[in-house]
Amino acid sequence: MGILLKWGIAGVGMITHDFLTAMGTLPADQHKVVAIAGKDLDRVHRLATLHKIGTAYEGYESLARDDSIVFVSVLNLQHYEITKLMLENGKHVLCEKPMGMTYKQTKSLVDLAREKKLFLLEGMWSRFFPAYDALDQHISSGGLGDIYHISIQFGVEINDIERNLMKDLGGGAVLDLGLYMLQLVQYIYKDPPTDMVCTGHISKAGVDESISCALKYKEGRTATLSAHTRANMTNKAEIVGTKGAVA
Amino acid sequence: MGILLKWGIAGVGMITHDFLTAMGTLPADQHKVVAIAGKDLDRVHRLATLHKIGTAYEGYESLARDDSIVFVSVLNLQHYEITKLMLENGKHVLCEKPMGMTYKQTKSLVDLAREKKLFLLEGMWSRFFPAYDALDQHISSGGLGDIYHISIQFGVEINDIERNLMKDLGGGAVLDLGLYMLQLVQYIYKDPPTDMVCTGHISKAGVDESISCALKYKEGRTATLSAHTRANMTNKAEIVGTKGAVA
Repeated sequence: MGILLKWGIAGVGMITHDFLTAMGTLPADQHKVVAIAGKDLDRVHRLATLHKIGTAYEGYESLARDDSIVFVSVLNLQHYEITKLMLENGKHVLCEKPMGMTYKQTKSLVDLAREKKLFLLEGMWSRFFPAYDALDQHISSGGLGDIYHISIQFGVEINDIERNLMKDLGGGAVLDLGLYMLQLVQYIYKDPPTDMVCTGHISKAGVDESISCALKYKEGRTATLSAHTRANMTNKAEIVGTKGAVA
Repeated sequence: MGILLKWGIAGVGMITHDFLTAMGTLPADQHKVVAIAGKDLDRVHRLATLHKIGTAYEGYESLARDDSIVFVSVLNLQHYEITKLMLENGKHVLCEKPMGMTYKQTKSLVDLAREKKLFLLEGMWSRFFPAYDALDQHISSGGLGDIYHISIQFGVEINDIERNLMKDLGGGAVLDLGLYMLQLVQYIYKDPPTDMVCTGHISKAGVDESISCALKYKEGRTATLSAHTRANMTNKAEIVGTKGAVA
């Protein structure tokens, strides 16, 4: 028997709906969604009804005074502000990726959570796939030998989705796709890169629609990453070592 | 019935032997090797005997005065000098890749050949694979839609081969492996890149043992290239378009 975690939800987008649906599959004595908050009260009420959530708030101030763990699922550009509000009010937070729009924003949230001894997690869900454990075991047991290169591509045609076209909504290839690749490279190499060079395209709306990067790590290790919002790629990571490769 | 081409060979390395073996499979009334030249006279004589070549020269000056087409297969660092010598003496030349060690060297050879109306070809043999014709047809017929990304990796454990370890022999990942990748990207995109950023590792001997590049082309197109001399990669090119991908 675990502790019952009470959740408050900040945001009413598509990911919120997916999150609530997924949470509905977990044991009711472990997770309960108690409140939902958003700027668009119609959508807040619609989701509250659909997922049987008792309390609906307009805006995020009331949720911050509630006594729940908060899932922050607002637009990218607001992640920092809402997460900060929740942490300042003593809430543990699970924030959708990207946690901040800049290194500075993200670091200040991490610092704040540490200072207040609160739990703070970015919603990098792929890290929790069983495949990551299997990969880690394969690498730890020497199955790949010395790893020298990681090649990842992640391309999805999302140029027609408004959020991804709009700079002021925090869209773009780097924040939408790029960070999934970077976290995987970091998961494997552990150390930060010693060099990283990138190039790419900016759309007419001012958002990055492609990004290609070459990374250098200690001891001869390299990586290449490519994200694109104009074409569906094969969306694959390949890890190359002296004893073999996995993709 | 074609014209009989008479060949002179400059160089006595492994590729020379492979080239002579391959040429031996062609009709004798189309290609005949008439002379071979090199600095190491023992090796020149050995290859001349093995491949039944009538004339053996020490050094390249005599070959330059012969009346053959010349295959330049010396060490990378000498390609420029020997090719220049042959062109200046009115020879048509097939030169092993890389034709020059720098853009400046290569351009001056191309300019010289044009000025003298001589045939000059770099031994980029992969361009002549039937797969390239098939690829070209597939792309031309719209099979891939609009191409937005090309990802290539080429890694071969050659760090233990002396030629690749020695800077003064013109070794390294870029010249040995990198140019195969770059020529393929150029074959497909046609235009030169608008941006190209690279990173990589230099070995203790001063030779590049890895290179990773991110390239940007017009109209949203990108590419990533990786070469490594410490690990065998899956050695694959993947071309991604809006209608599909080929690898």
